[in-house]
Amino acid sequence: MSIAVDLNADMGESFGDWVMGQDDALLEVVTSANVACGFHAGDPDVMASTMALAVQNGVGIGAHPGFGDLQGFGRRRMDLPHRVLAHMVQYQLGAAQAMARASGGQVRHLKLHGALSNMCSEDETLARVCYEAALAVDPDIIIMVLAATAQQRVVETLGCRWAGEIFADRAYNPDATLVSRGLPGAVIHDPAYAAERILGMVQAGAILPEKGDPIPAAIDTICLHGDGETALEIARTVRSVLQDAGVTLRTFEGRSGVFG
Amino acid sequence: MSIAVDLNADMGESFGDWVMGQDDALLEVVTSANVACGFHAGDPDVMASTMALAVQNGVGIGAHPGFGDLQGFGRRRMDLPHRVLAHMVQYQLGAAQAMARASGGQVRHLKLHGALSNMCSEDETLARVCYEAALAVDPDIIIMVLAATAQQRVVETLGCRWAGEIFADRAYNPDATLVSRGLPGAVIHDPAYAAERILGMVQAGAILPEKGDPIPAAIDTICLHGDGETALEIARTVRSVLQDAGVTLRTFEGRSGVFG
Amino acid sequence: MSIAVDLNADMGESFGDWVMGQDDALLEVVTSANVACGFHAGDPDVMASTMALAVQNGVGIGAHPGFGDLQGFGRRRMDLPHRVLAHMVQYQLGAAQAMARASGGQVRHLKLHGALSNMCSEDETLARVCYEAALAVDPDIIIMVLAATAQQRVVETLGCRWAGEIFADRAYNPDATLVSRGLPGAVIHDPAYAAERILGMVQAGAILPEKGDPIPAAIDTICLHGDGETALEIARTVRSVLQDAGVTLRTFEGRSGVFG
Amino acid sequence: MSIAVDLNADMGESFGDWVMGQDDALLEVVTSANVACGFHAGDPDVMASTMALAVQNGVGIGAHPGFGDLQGFGRRRMDLPHRVLAHMVQYQLGAAQAMARASGGQVRHLKLHGALSNMCSEDETLARVCYEAALAVDPDIIIMVLAATAQQRVVETLGCRWAGEIFADRAYNPDATLVSRGLPGAVIHDPAYAAERILGMVQAGAILPEKGDPIPAAIDTICLHGDGETALEIARTVRSVLQDAGVTLRTFEGRSGVFG
Repeated sequence: MSIAVDLNADMGESFGDWVMGQDDALLEVVTSANVACGFHAGDPDVMASTMALAVQNGVGIGAHPGFGDLQGFGRRRMDLPHRVLAHMVQYQLGAAQAMARASGGQVRHLKLHGALSNMCSEDETLARVCYEAALAVDPDIIIMVLAATAQQRVVETLGCRWAGEIFADRAYNPDATLVSRGLPGAVIHDPAYAAERILGMVQAGAILPEKGDPIPAAIDTICLHGDGETALEIARTVRSVLQDAGVTLRTFEGRSGVFG
Repeated sequence: MSIAVDLNADMGESFGDWVMGQDDALLEVVTSANVACGFHAGDPDVMASTMALAVQNGVGIGAHPGFGDLQGFGRRRMDLPHRVLAHMVQYQLGAAQAMARASGGQVRHLKLHGALSNMCSEDETLARVCYEAALAVDPDIIIMVLAATAQQRVVETLGCRWAGEIFADRAYNPDATLVSRGLPGAVIHDPAYAAERILGMVQAGAILPEKGDPIPAAIDTICLHGDGETALEIARTVRSVLQDAGVTLRTFEGRSGVFG
Repeated sequence: MSIAVDLNADMGESFGDWVMGQDDALLEVVTSANVACGFHAGDPDVMASTMALAVQNGVGIGAHPGFGDLQGFGRRRMDLPHRVLAHMVQYQLGAAQAMARASGGQVRHLKLHGALSNMCSEDETLARVCYEAALAVDPDIIIMVLAATAQQRVVETLGCRWAGEIFADRAYNPDATLVSRGLPGAVIHDPAYAAERILGMVQAGAILPEKGDPIPAAIDTICLHGDGETALEIARTVRSVLQDAGVTLRTFEGRSGVFG
Repeated sequence: MSIAVDLNADMGESFGDWVMGQDDALLEVVTSANVACGFHAGDPDVMASTMALAVQNGVGIGAHPGFGDLQGFGRRRMDLPHRVLAHMVQYQLGAAQAMARASGGQVRHLKLHGALSNMCSEDETLARVCYEAALAVDPDIIIMVLAATAQQRVVETLGCRWAGEIFADRAYNPDATLVSRGLPGAVIHDPAYAAERILGMVQAGAILPEKGDPIPAAIDTICLHGDGETALEIARTVRSVLQDAGVTLRTFEGRSGVFG
C-alpha cells in the first residue's frame, strides 16, 4: 500500500518593501502553503503574488491567520475576548479567500499562526472558538492542527475535515510535546537526519520521540521552513528522501472524527 | 406603474471603543447598508454586529472599502499603484464576505468610500481597476456608482450589474455634478425640502439641479446619512414621503449595460 | 495647616474622526491631564489640541502611554519583552514631550494606561522597566502611581519624584486593592457620596475601605473620569466639595522616597 | 584651506522581524544617520539599537520622519492638511529625541523622507509647514535640505541652521534637478565614477551636471545608501576617495541664511 503525505510551509510573510523567506524556492518543495493574511505579516499585494505562484505550482492554499501585531510578527500573546478572536479569524479567512479567488485558486485549509496557535494548542476552548469561527465561514475548510495537542482534540469533536501536522525540525518528548527550544537537540539542523527521522515517522504512522515509545499520530502533513539556507536544505532533503522511499507527496484531503 | 427605489447609508463606522453613527436607528430606515471594512473605519467586531443587525432588519449588505487610513477616515487622497488599489479592494471585499456569511447574510453590493470614491468618480481608469478587482472576486456583485460620473461610465462597459446613486442632501449643478460644499445651499438641511426634492427626482427618473433642466439618470438608490439628528430626520422623512407617494422601497436588483 | 491635592483625568482619547470624552469640560475641573500618546488612543492632532487647551487652563500635562492596540484601547494584556516595553514607553513619552513643547507646555508627569498599568500594579519588575525607561528620557518627570500597589513600591526605591493616586469612583478592599468591578458597590455612581468619601480620605491622609480600618496612603491626586454625564458630575462635585472644605486644588510637585 | 563635508545615509529602516539595510556596515562609513521614526519604517526597538550604534560610532543622529504608511514605506503621496503634517513631523521628532536621549545621544538634525520629502522639494508651503513644526519643538535642530530645491529656499528664510545635501549616485540636470530615474545614466552604479564625481563637486563647491555649467551649491553632506552590495561599495569608495584627497569628513554644524 502506498503512503501519502503533504508538505507544508508558512509563506507570504513579506510585508510592503520588507522581504522575508524564500517563497519561490519553497513553492517547488511543498504541496501546501500557509499564507499570512495581513495581520501579523503579509499584505494584500504579497498575498496576491504568493497565491498566484502557489496556483502556478499546484500547491494547496491555506489561510494562516494570526494576531494583529505586525511589530511582534504575531508571536506575542494577546488576551482577547472569544468573540474578538472569532471575528479576527473570520476576517482574515475571508480576505484570504478573496485573494485566492482573484488568483485563480481557493483556500483549502486553515492553520493558526504563532502565539495564537500556541495558545490554541494548550487551550481547547480557544481552539474551538477559532475553528468554529472558520467553519461558520466555510464548512468545507480543512483545519490543520498540531498533532496530539488540544488543537487535535477539538477538531476530532467538530465533525469537520482536518489534517494532523508534525515538525520536520523539532524533537519530540515522550508525551508528544515538543522539546523546549532551550534544550540541546530541540531543533534539528542536519538535513539528512531530519529527513530520515521524518521518513521513519511517516512509515510508522507515529511520532518518534527522542526517547520512549512511538506515539501513533495523525501524520497528514510535515511542517517545513524557508528562512535560512539550512531550512531550505532540510525541506528539499525531506522531499527527496520521502519520494525516493516511495511516499506519495500530495495535498491532504482531510480526515474527520477521532484519530485511531 | 409602480416605481421602486432603494435607500442606502454608510454604516459600521465605529472602531474599537469609538462609536460613530446611529446604525440601529438607520437600519430601520434604509434598504441597503454600506459596511466599512476595517481599513478606514470599522473592525471585525463592528462588521459582525452591524451585519447581524442588517440581516435581522432585512437590509441588503454592501462592502464599503476605503483607503487604509484610520486616522484620516479614508478621506485623504493617496497615490497608489493600480495593482495595490485592486488588491486593497479585493482584500476588504473578501473580509466583508466572510463576516456577512458568519452573520447569516451575504454581500450583495460594493460601494467605494471617501477619497477613493471621489478619485474614481473623476478617473475612469481608477474606477475600472477597483471594479474589475471586485468582480474578479464576485462576478455577481452589484456595483453602486455615483450616477452620471466616471464611476457610471465604467460599469456601463463592464457587463456587470450596477445601481446608480443620488444624494438626498446635496444640491446638483446643471451638469449633474454636486454643488461644492463651500457654496450656499450645497448641503440640504431641511428634511421636508430634501424629501420632496428626492420624490420629484425619483418620479421624474432624473436629477433635478437647482438651476437648469432635468437630467435623466439611473436613480436606483438614495444616499442617506446617520450622523447628527438632522441627518436621521432627513432619512426618516425621505422614507415616509416616498412611501406615502406610493414609491416601493426595496433593495435594488441591479441593472446592466448603458443607461438610457 | 492647609491640605492640597491634585485632580487628574485621562484625556485626549479621541482618535481621528472619532470623539471620546468631554475634555473641554473636564479641563475646567482637573489640575492634571493624562494625555494619550497615539498607541491606544489619541493621535498627533488630538494630542496637540488637548495639550494646547491644558496649557490655556493651567492644567499640568502628563504622558499616558499604553499598549499599541487601538482596537482594544490598550485594555488587552500583551506579553512583551522588557526591552520592548521600555522602548514603547520612551517613544510615547518623547512624542508627548514634543507635542507639549509645540503647544507651549511641557510634560510634567507620566501615568501608565489600561492593561499596562494593571500589569505594573501587580508586577514590580514590569513597573520598574517602564519607570526606569521614562526616567532615562527625563530624570525629572513625576511618576504617577496607583497608591499602595507594586507601582508605588517601585518608585519608592527609584529616587525619582512620584505622586500617589486614588480613585474617586471605586470602592476599596481592606487591603487597599480595588473591589472587583463585578461586585455590588464596586463603582460609585452617586456624586455626593463620592465627594464626601474622597474628602474624608484626603483629610485623613488614608484610603477608607468600605469595611475595615483606614489605610494611611500617599494621596497626592484623585483620579476622575469624563465619559458619561455621571462621571462629569462626580468630577465637578468632588472639586466643589473639596474646595468648600478648604482643600487646595493644585498640580502635585511630587514626593520622593518611601511613603510614611 | 581644508574642505570638510558630511556623509549621511537613511537608517533604522528595519521593522519588527523584517530586516532592511546594512546599518552596522554603513555606520562605519557615514558621519550622520537619518533614523526612521516608526511611521514609514523603524519601530521603537529598531530606533533604540540604531541610535545606540550611532552613538558608539560617533555618528550624528537625525530624525527622518515620513508619512504614516508602513506598507508603502512612506513613498506614496498623501494629501494631508497642513496642521496634520505639522503634528506628524513633531510627533516623530519627539519620539526620536526620546530614543536618542535614552541611547546616550541626541537628535542633531532632521531630514524628511520619501514622498514627503519629494513633495516638500517642489512646494515651499509644505516645506515651511514641516520645518516650522520641527523648529517649534527644537529651535536648534539642523534642517537637512535637498540642495537647490524648494526645501533650501525655505530654510534660507527661516533663520534656522541648515545643511545642503547632494546625492552620490544620482545624475543632475543643468538646472540642478535630478535626472529622471527612467533615463539612461540617471542612477550611478560605478563606485569609482561616483566617488570622483563627488570629489569634484565637493572641491568645486558646485553641483556638476552631466551637461552644462557647474552650479554653485551648499554641499554640506553627501547622501549615501546601504541597500545592495553596490550601494555599500559606493559609500565606502566615496569615503576613501574624499579622505585620500584631504577632505575632512565630519558631521555638519549647519549654516544659516541665504546661500552664496
